[in-house]
Amino acid sequence: MRLGIIGGGQLGAMLAEAGNPLGVTSRVLDPQPASCVRRVADCIEAEYDEPRALSELSDWAQILTYEFENVPLDAVQGRPDVVPPPEALHIAQDRLHEKTFFQEHGVGTAPFAPVSRVQDLQEALVQVGTPAILKTRRLGYDGKGQALVNNVEEARAAFEELGGVPCILEGVVDFRRELSVIAVRARNGDVRVYPLAENHHRGGILRWSITPAPNLGDRQDEAASIAVRLLEALDYVGVLTVELFDVDGPLVANEMAPRVHNSGHHTIEGAVTSQFENHVRAVLDLPLGSTDVLLPVGMVNLIGAEPPLEALLAIEGVSVHRYVKAPRPGRKVGHVAVQGPDRTTVEQRLARVRELVAEHEQ
Amino acid sequence: MRLGIIGGGQLGAMLAEAGNPLGVTSRVLDPQPASCVRRVADCIEAEYDEPRALSELSDWAQILTYEFENVPLDAVQGRPDVVPPPEALHIAQDRLHEKTFFQEHGVGTAPFAPVSRVQDLQEALVQVGTPAILKTRRLGYDGKGQALVNNVEEARAAFEELGGVPCILEGVVDFRRELSVIAVRARNGDVRVYPLAENHHRGGILRWSITPAPNLGDRQDEAASIAVRLLEALDYVGVLTVELFDVDGPLVANEMAPRVHNSGHHTIEGAVTSQFENHVRAVLDLPLGSTDVLLPVGMVNLIGAEPPLEALLAIEGVSVHRYVKAPRPGRKVGHVAVQGPDRTTVEQRLARVRELVAEHEQ
Repeated sequence: MRLGIIGGGQLGAMLAEAGNPLGVTSRVLDPQPASCVRRVADCIEAEYDEPRALSELSDWAQILTYEFENVPLDAVQGRPDVVPPPEALHIAQDRLHEKTFFQEHGVGTAPFAPVSRVQDLQEALVQVGTPAILKTRRLGYDGKGQALVNNVEEARAAFEELGGVPCILEGVVDFRRELSVIAVRARNGDVRVYPLAENHHRGGILRWSITPAPNLGDRQDEAASIAVRLLEALDYVGVLTVELFDVDGPLVANEMAPRVHNSGHHTIEGAVTSQFENHVRAVLDLPLGSTDVLLPVGMVNLIGAEPPLEALLAIEGVSVHRYVKAPRPGRKVGHVAVQGPDRTTVEQRLARVRELVAEHEQ
Repeated sequence: MRLGIIGGGQLGAMLAEAGNPLGVTSRVLDPQPASCVRRVADCIEAEYDEPRALSELSDWAQILTYEFENVPLDAVQGRPDVVPPPEALHIAQDRLHEKTFFQEHGVGTAPFAPVSRVQDLQEALVQVGTPAILKTRRLGYDGKGQALVNNVEEARAAFEELGGVPCILEGVVDFRRELSVIAVRARNGDVRVYPLAENHHRGGILRWSITPAPNLGDRQDEAASIAVRLLEALDYVGVLTVELFDVDGPLVANEMAPRVHNSGHHTIEGAVTSQFENHVRAVLDLPLGSTDVLLPVGMVNLIGAEPPLEALLAIEGVSVHRYVKAPRPGRKVGHVAVQGPDRTTVEQRLARVRELVAEHEQ
């Protein structure tokens, strides 16, 4: 079995690693394949939309998939050998499409309004209320490409700061916590949903999570129903992630990623079948694996720098994943999974890891 | 961190895979590196005792280890950069040394007697009793190089059949079940012990296991004490496996393997830290990881042939490891881990996997 992966970052590497025991050989397309993926897959070094490189990958592989949502749409649109379906990329690449898509399928969102020109801001602020967040419609991640605004002056300054590109103004959601649901859909329509992760961000970057999120009540069923609706609407194949706000009333969708997700890294150790293996199984038309997370599991990102490996490994229950990427402030250079026999123990170990990581992160 | 591995079979591949997330790069020495290891590590294609190749590996790596116990002793003896210590190989390569070593450290064995010449057989049979098993002292595995004998005529025939090489005659142990203990020792003397596996053989080959073995009583402590004694006697570094017979009275040691072991494959999914990662941690002087197996886990070997992948993956809780080796009768070509929320569920799933595997194995 031969899998072509567009994108050679840590997610691509983890997909290749998950396929390996199943007998899946992976090849990766990336203009700058990181050393992390080089160790587990062959690389084609070219731009994502370089037609010859894509053809080479496509000729070699049985199926193509991708590890990030900013794959140039032109490169993959209309290609039946690319999954998840490029339509999911079309939606996920644009915050306006995304929120519209959520609403069309009965999934709640923050109030929002498109902002194409500076003149749209006043009307948008009336519609959405303040405080609000002005975001570029495209290419934002980890809190980049957005600004909190309280009035039309701030909104104008932010719009200019963001380069005057098409934006969306979103109302600020007063949420109790952030959750994410990761689900996988097979070619035959079979869907499996992982337990929700509770995610903790700082500076717009995911710092740590615990899964299953505590005190879920009926939120698991509600999130699963959202995931199933979106997956079916897209006739989706593979892993889809939806970030959610837990509020009074129904869950509010923030954004979706048509791919494996940082908030699912705990599934390597903590789930019976990881998100990476389930994505590989789905795209290669193999039966899906169990998404059960049988014991609580924690995850901590290593941001900008790594603590000494010895110190991390000395904490009981820890598994370290180093991405072997050049460290720079705000960059994810690794993550740590935290296991234990029960929630209390996992939370204690997680606290120790978070403390150690916080001393070193940049 | 750079790890040199002598031996490029599936165990070498799994060691390399376990080191990868820690940032450990592995290189493997093997005269015929299997395709399974090629996907995860660079290879040096040479005989295990080819001095130039060993020097090349040793110059490159911080430390050398091995994945099988039949490494030519001459190649590694007296090398401080080889762990586990070559003395462990010296013992494990010879059944007479091994049983003597067990007894010297207060670990029970079957009655045994050395057989150097055909004339030794009569005396050995008197000493050991019948039925007995005549085994070559060296190079036996998976039930090869041994024969059950009931009298001196059969013993003579078997000795001739085995080529007249130095042998050991062992009494047959009337055991209830076979167990194995896997333990790991760090350079600082720290020791961790995995829960015992209950192992089921047929035709001398491990077919399946379940961990923790049910109804252990104080056998876990007893086995751990055996492991600790042997590890300390050898000033051992890395993973050591001891196969044990569960009998009336104290546990009886059958043999030891100075390496990661087939009966520990469940630790990839089922333990907090796998035997492979713990071996890598130990030899590279990193803190050991937790050997907890928090929920029961099963393991089934794929022998001689693989069932259709789709059929295996359709069984809930299953993780498949294909070694991508040419199938031939009796050869291990893969294994399957079986997870579930409780022992009953794991046993049910395990039974389904065993049934499917039995239909195909050769």
